[in-house]
This record gives sequence, C-alpha cells and structure tokens, in this order.
Amino acid sequence: MSSDNPVLAAILNRASVRLFSGRALEPETLETLLAAALRAPTTAMGHFYSIIVVADPGLKAALHQACGRQRAMNGSEFLVLCIDLRRSDLWAERFGARRRMTGYTALIYGTIDMTAAAENLVIAAAGLGLGTCYIGGIGHNAARVCRILALPPGVLPVVGLAVGYPAESPAPRPRIPLRFMVHRDGYRDMTAQEIDAAVLELARPSRRDAGGTADDVLAAARPYISMIEGPFWERGEEHLRAALAGQGLAPVDGGRGGGEHE
Amino acid sequence: MSSDNPVLAAILNRASVRLFSGRALEPETLETLLAAALRAPTTAMGHFYSIIVVADPGLKAALHQACGRQRAMNGSEFLVLCIDLRRSDLWAERFGARRRMTGYTALIYGTIDMTAAAENLVIAAAGLGLGTCYIGGIGHNAARVCRILALPPGVLPVVGLAVGYPAESPAPRPRIPLRFMVHRDGYRDMTAQEIDAAVLELARPSRRDAGGTADDVLAAARPYISMIEGPFWERGEEHLRAALAGQGLAPVDGGRGGGEHE
Repeated sequence: MSSDNPVLAAILNRASVRLFSGRALEPETLETLLAAALRAPTTAMGHFYSIIVVADPGLKAALHQACGRQRAMNGSEFLVLCIDLRRSDLWAERFGARRRMTGYTALIYGTIDMTAAAENLVIAAAGLGLGTCYIGGIGHNAARVCRILALPPGVLPVVGLAVGYPAESPAPRPRIPLRFMVHRDGYRDMTAQEIDAAVLELARPSRRDAGGTADDVLAAARPYISMIEGPFWERGEEHLRAALAGQGLAPVDGGRGGGEHE
Repeated sequence: MSSDNPVLAAILNRASVRLFSGRALEPETLETLLAAALRAPTTAMGHFYSIIVVADPGLKAALHQACGRQRAMNGSEFLVLCIDLRRSDLWAERFGARRRMTGYTALIYGTIDMTAAAENLVIAAAGLGLGTCYIGGIGHNAARVCRILALPPGVLPVVGLAVGYPAESPAPRPRIPLRFMVHRDGYRDMTAQEIDAAVLELARPSRRDAGGTADDVLAAARPYISMIEGPFWERGEEHLRAALAGQGLAPVDGGRGGGEHE
C-alpha cells in the first residue's frame, strides 16, 4: 500500500531489515531516535521501561551469541529494551511512598510502556531511511542477558532492537487480512473456510499462486504453524519464568517473588 | 522539540488528546488507521492481538461507564485492543498443531504485538492531524469489559484507544530526562540527587519554577508518586487476575488456567 502522507508511507512501507551496511549511526542520529522513543505514551507517567545502548564490542558479541547469532545484529547498533520497575521503586522509596505496581500489572504495563517506546523508535528510524529489526532472542534468553549486562532486580530485558543503515530493502511481509484482525462490537471467530483463505493470503506469493486445494492450504500453513508451536516457545517459557524469578518480578502470591532490592 | 522531518515531527509533537470535536471519522480514514496498525511487527508472525471497533452507542456507553467515564471517550471513535491467543489457537487446531504459546510468554508477546499495533495507529493518526488517547480503564476493568463485549476465552482487553478530530492542542507532557531512561552497556541506578533533579524537570512548569528546596522537590514529586502508588493499582491487579482466570490466560502451573475453549 502506498500513501502520499509521509507518516503513513513510513508506517505502511516499513519492513524489518536483517542486513545492515556496517556504517555506524552518527551519535546525534541515535540521540534523535532515543528522543522519539521517549515521546511514547507512558502508563500513569510511570516510565516503566529502560533502554540499554550496547556499545561495548565484547558485550555485543556475548549478546549475539546468547540470542542465536542473529544476522540483524551484525553491522548495526544494538539496543536492549527492558521492563523497568526499579526506577519507579527508587523514586517511591525516595519520597516515602509505598510501592504498588506489582504482579501482572507490572508485567503488562511495563511491556506496554517498553513496546510503545520501541515502536516509536522503529517508525522514527523508518522516517529517516534507517532500518530496524526486533530481536526476540533477548526475551527468550532473558536470564542470560541479565547476567551479561549485570541487570539488577526489577529490570527485565524483553526485546532487542538492531538499528542502522540498511543494506537491503525488503518488501513488507503479508499480514492476516484486516477483516479478521478487526472486529465490530464484539468478537467473531474465523470459520474453517476463512482460516484456509487467510492462510493462502498470508503465505509468500510463490505458495499463494499454488491454488486452493487442501494440500496447498496445508503447505501454506506449515511455516506459520511451525512458528507458533514447537519446543521454541516451551523453552522460552522456562527461561522467562527463571528470569522473572531472578529479577524479582514473578507475580506469585499477589506480589513479587524473591530478589527484591529493598 | 521540533523537526523538519514529518515523521519525527509527528512523533515528537504528539500529545494525548482528551477533548474531541464530535465529528465522526470517515470510514476510509478509520480503515487507513487500522491498516497502519496492522503493519506493526508481530511476534513470529503470530498476530497475537485483535482490535474491536466499538460502534454501537449502547456498548460504548457501557464501556464509558465501566472505565470511569473518561472524557476522551466522548466525541471520538473508540477501539478496544486485546491480547488474542484465540485466533492462533484456532489456526493451530485447524492444522493439527499442538498449541504452545502459553503462560507468561503468551501475556508478554500478546502485549507486545497489541501495543506495537496501537502505537502504529497513534502515530499514523498524528500524521493525519487526528488525536488519540490511550484509555487504561479498559485493562483496569478487563473482566467487566469482557462481559460487555462478550469476549471469549483466549482474548483479554488491555487498552482502549479514543481516536478522532481534536478539539484541543495540548503540548507534549514532560518526560524523565533521556540520560536517566537510557543506559550504556549496563544499568545504572539514579542517585538521590538525580531523582530530585529529575522530579523538578518532570514537574509541570509552574512547579519547576518553584526552585530546588527539599519542600519544592517533595511538592513536585507528589503528582508522580500519587499515580504510581495508591489503591488504584492494587484494585487493578485484583481485576486483572480475575480477568486472566476468566479468559483462560492465567499462567499458573506452567500453562493456562480454566476457561480453555478446546
């Protein structure tokens, strides 16, 4: 989809970039991107997130290794975005307030604040002709990332962002059609026939052209299904539980678990 | 901060709008905004979210009541953004896959997908001269919202978005200074002196001018602290736990709780 509006164009034409030129970002460009991130809405002015710029080559190599050596981390700047309940706790302690942002609330609103900032940065980068790629490997290896970056309790690394000058111009990838992502006045399940049709629309064009037999649909569905099932997510959940406990952010028994920093 | 780049300008000058003109969005404008939302990155192509357009006046009034009658819901379109594990479960069942996206992973990546889409819509709206406001009351009253919209298991409403033609032009609100939000190669706690200085920068200009005595700092801190503590979040956590259990999304015992839809 194209648009004459430059903001819409930046959003509609964006695609994750996984091949970067190796040219470093000018410090003032990085500063502009970070300023754009910080303009994101934040829950109750809480600022429940932090951004870590990873500049040290040794740390970057260790994170690259921990995240499965993802190509997008080569030739780009690398940021680690964290849920951060620690800063607000320190502020609350400083001014004699009882801390209250705990449990699932802390996880969900921390994730909202962090993601809104990340997506602001991603769109700002697109507007400047820069490429970005979310690196989910940071969250899937959160406990290791905590050790590598010596992150204290209350801070959970969730996503990485590779940012830099692109060396490829990928086309935007397909999405599940809007009519199945957007509901009106309630929620409607997709029918089996709609799922089959959407799978073909979601598939890469080569598969989409194959046609509509049951075998075609199954072949088109396989890449999607293999991403949402599989041991990948089970291992990820184990790691995430360990990291939540280690960082004192497990929402057990109505509060946070061990690792409190008081 | 200003910028000649239209994408940066849209991001840097955005502020939440709470007063709308009452003029309805053209259907094609709403469609464009939804298309922008759907271009957001999505975890493993999972599309773990749904957007509900609330058009029925009775439903909108019921949500307005449930969310504490927030002014931003008057004279604007209203969307409810949900974590949605249900669609991917249906797809997985259709193609014989075991479901694996459960537990904390489902909550966090659902929240990431949902928020990236929401923020894309917010920036796209800013680029079109429209106003938006996140409505946290949706998540704080998630169980009631589920009943009002008859949301099935696997779907959790987390944020609302009011979208429309603005009837005010608020200035962007202050943020915690970038140097405390962004770390380099690790995590650094703010010192007590830095917290005091940041509190004064964060405060509205009227308070910031007051000066730097301990009493000034405490007065400046009060609005921030009152938002992050207080019974508001404790009640919200209770509601959230009830909604997670009710929607079959509580990450207890390594999987989802009751309410499975298989």
